[in-house]
Amino acid sequence: MAPTVPTVKLNNGREMPLVGFGLWKVNNDTCADQVYNAIKTGYRLFDGACDYGNEVESGQGVKRAIDEGIVKREDLFIVSKLWNSFHDKEHVKPILKKQLADWGLDYFDLYIIHFPIALKYVDPSVRYPPGFFYEDNKLVFSKASLEETYHAMEECYEEGLMKSFGISNYVGSLVLDVERYAKHLPQTLQIEHHPYLVQQDLVDLCKSRGIAVTAYSSFGPSSFLELDMKRAQDTPLLLEHADIKSIADKHNKTPAQVLLRWATQRGVAVIPKSNNPTRLAQNLDVCSFDLTKEEIEKISSMDKDLRFNSPPNYGIDIPIYA
Amino acid sequence: MAPTVPTVKLNNGREMPLVGFGLWKVNNDTCADQVYNAIKTGYRLFDGACDYGNEVESGQGVKRAIDEGIVKREDLFIVSKLWNSFHDKEHVKPILKKQLADWGLDYFDLYIIHFPIALKYVDPSVRYPPGFFYEDNKLVFSKASLEETYHAMEECYEEGLMKSFGISNYVGSLVLDVERYAKHLPQTLQIEHHPYLVQQDLVDLCKSRGIAVTAYSSFGPSSFLELDMKRAQDTPLLLEHADIKSIADKHNKTPAQVLLRWATQRGVAVIPKSNNPTRLAQNLDVCSFDLTKEEIEKISSMDKDLRFNSPPNYGIDIPIYA
Repeated sequence: MAPTVPTVKLNNGREMPLVGFGLWKVNNDTCADQVYNAIKTGYRLFDGACDYGNEVESGQGVKRAIDEGIVKREDLFIVSKLWNSFHDKEHVKPILKKQLADWGLDYFDLYIIHFPIALKYVDPSVRYPPGFFYEDNKLVFSKASLEETYHAMEECYEEGLMKSFGISNYVGSLVLDVERYAKHLPQTLQIEHHPYLVQQDLVDLCKSRGIAVTAYSSFGPSSFLELDMKRAQDTPLLLEHADIKSIADKHNKTPAQVLLRWATQRGVAVIPKSNNPTRLAQNLDVCSFDLTKEEIEKISSMDKDLRFNSPPNYGIDIPIYA
Repeated sequence: MAPTVPTVKLNNGREMPLVGFGLWKVNNDTCADQVYNAIKTGYRLFDGACDYGNEVESGQGVKRAIDEGIVKREDLFIVSKLWNSFHDKEHVKPILKKQLADWGLDYFDLYIIHFPIALKYVDPSVRYPPGFFYEDNKLVFSKASLEETYHAMEECYEEGLMKSFGISNYVGSLVLDVERYAKHLPQTLQIEHHPYLVQQDLVDLCKSRGIAVTAYSSFGPSSFLELDMKRAQDTPLLLEHADIKSIADKHNKTPAQVLLRWATQRGVAVIPKSNNPTRLAQNLDVCSFDLTKEEIEKISSMDKDLRFNSPPNYGIDIPIYA
C-alpha cells in the first residue's frame, strides 16, 4: 500500500503534496516508464520543466496511468517551469500552451519562473529546449524585467492555465520586490536546499509571507556528481555522512529518508527522483517517522552556505547569487 | 600638501574620487567642523545620506570652505542617498530637493538608492530622518517596486538634480534586474566591502557592466562596535589582525591604510571617516603606495562572507541578504 503523503496548504487554498518526483535529469528513453511507475508507487506530484527536455515523455507516462485508471487527472499535481528564454511578456502564454500540449494537459497545477534570468527568445522550431546559450556559448540577454514576466504569469494564472504559480532560484531581495509588484503573491518558491545550504532566513521569509518552499537537490552534492561538477566532487556526500547515517540507523531508515524528512518536517516540500523501485518507494515514505528536535538541529548545524546549482558553477557567467 | 587622490571614470564620463569622507555616524555637533577640516585636509568627496541625520551640518561645513575660497563647488563631489521611506515615485523628487536645500546645494554629484527596501512614507514635518520604523518598532512597507523608484531616480538624473546616480546594498540578482529595466545604467553600487566580505563575484559583475563600486565599512567590525553589535564584538578586528599589521609594517603604513589600499588598488572606491587629524590625512593618502599582488591575494583570502550591516543584525526583520 502506498504511503500517505501529507500536503501543504498554499496561500490560494489549494493543497500541494509535500513529496513529489523530480524530473530533472530523467532520461528521455526511460522517462515515460519512470513516471508511470512512480504513479503506481503512489507519487502524485511531478516536477518538470521545459529545460529538462522530457515533458513529452513525462506526459506519456501520465497518460498511460490515467488510461489504465490508476489515477485521475485531478489526483495529480503536475508542475512545470517557464524557461529563461521566454521571459518577454508576449512569449509566456504561447510557451506555456506549448508545454501543456507536450504534456497532453489542459492546465498545470503549478507553473514556475525557473530562474530570475531573462534571455533572448529562441523559437521552439529552431531549438527546444533552448538552454542558456543563444549560440556558440554566447549569452544574449532579454530586457524583460522580472516584474514584466511576473505580470504575464499572473495573467495566465487568472486564465486558469495553471492552478497555482511560483518562482524559483529567487533570493530574499527578489522575494521582497515581488511582494511590492505582485497582484497575487506566488504560491511557492523552489530553491536548492539541503543541510549544506539551509537558508533558514529565506525559508522564514517565505513562511512569514505564506509562500510554500520546495527543496531541490535535497541530497546535496550527489545530484551534481553526474554533471562532473568539481565543487560537488570535493564535498563529502551527505548520503554517506556519519551524522546522517547514525540518525538513519537510529530510526531504521536510510540516509536519503532522513534528509528528506529533515526538510518535510520543517514544512519544506521535496522532489527527489530515483529509478530504483525500492528507493522510489522509500523516498515517498518520508513522513511516517519523526526526527527529534535535536536531530533536526544537528542536521541544520551542518550548514555551510554551500551552493551547487549556481550558473557560474556550470561556466555560465550570470552571478544570480552574487 | 594634500595627497593626490585618483579618480575613477564613471559610465557617464564623469570622474569620481577614489577616496572620500563617509558621514555615517558623524555627530551633529562636530559635523560641520569635520567636513570643513576634511576639505582643508584635501578631501573632495563627501558621502552623506538622509538617514545620517547630518545633512544640514555637512552643508554648513561645505559652505564655510567655499566661502573661505578653499574650494569651489565644482571641486567637490557631494553624495547623498534616498531613504527607504521615500521610494514611492511621487516622493523621490520632493525629498531630493529637500536634501539639496539642507545641504545648500543645487545638485548632488551622486544620489543613491540607499537600500532595496521600500517603506511607507513619513512626512518630513512629522519625523526626519524617519528611520526604519513607522511607529513603535513597527515596520510598514510601501508597494513601490524597485523599478518604480529607479525610474523616478532616472527622471531626476535627466533633470540634472544629480550628475550621477547609484544604488546601494543591492545583490547580484537585483543588479541584473536593474540592467533589464534601466533606461540609464547606474553609475555606482555602494556595498559593505572588507576582507571578511569580499564579494568578488558582485564586484566583477559591476565591473563587467561599467558600474563603479564604492566600499563602506572598509575596516570591517570596527564600524559596528559603537553600535553594540554582537557579531562585530565577536569578530577579530581587521585593524589589529596580524596579517594586516605585518603587511602595514612592511610598507611603513598603518593597518587602516593597507585596508583602504587593498580596495582602491582593486578599483573599489572608499569612504572612511575619522575625527583624528592624523588619521584623516592618512586615510586620504592611500594611493601613494602599492601592495604586491601576493599581498592583495593574501588579504582577499581572509574572506568569510561575514556581513555586519544587514537589517536583521539590528533587529529589523527585512532579510535583504537571505
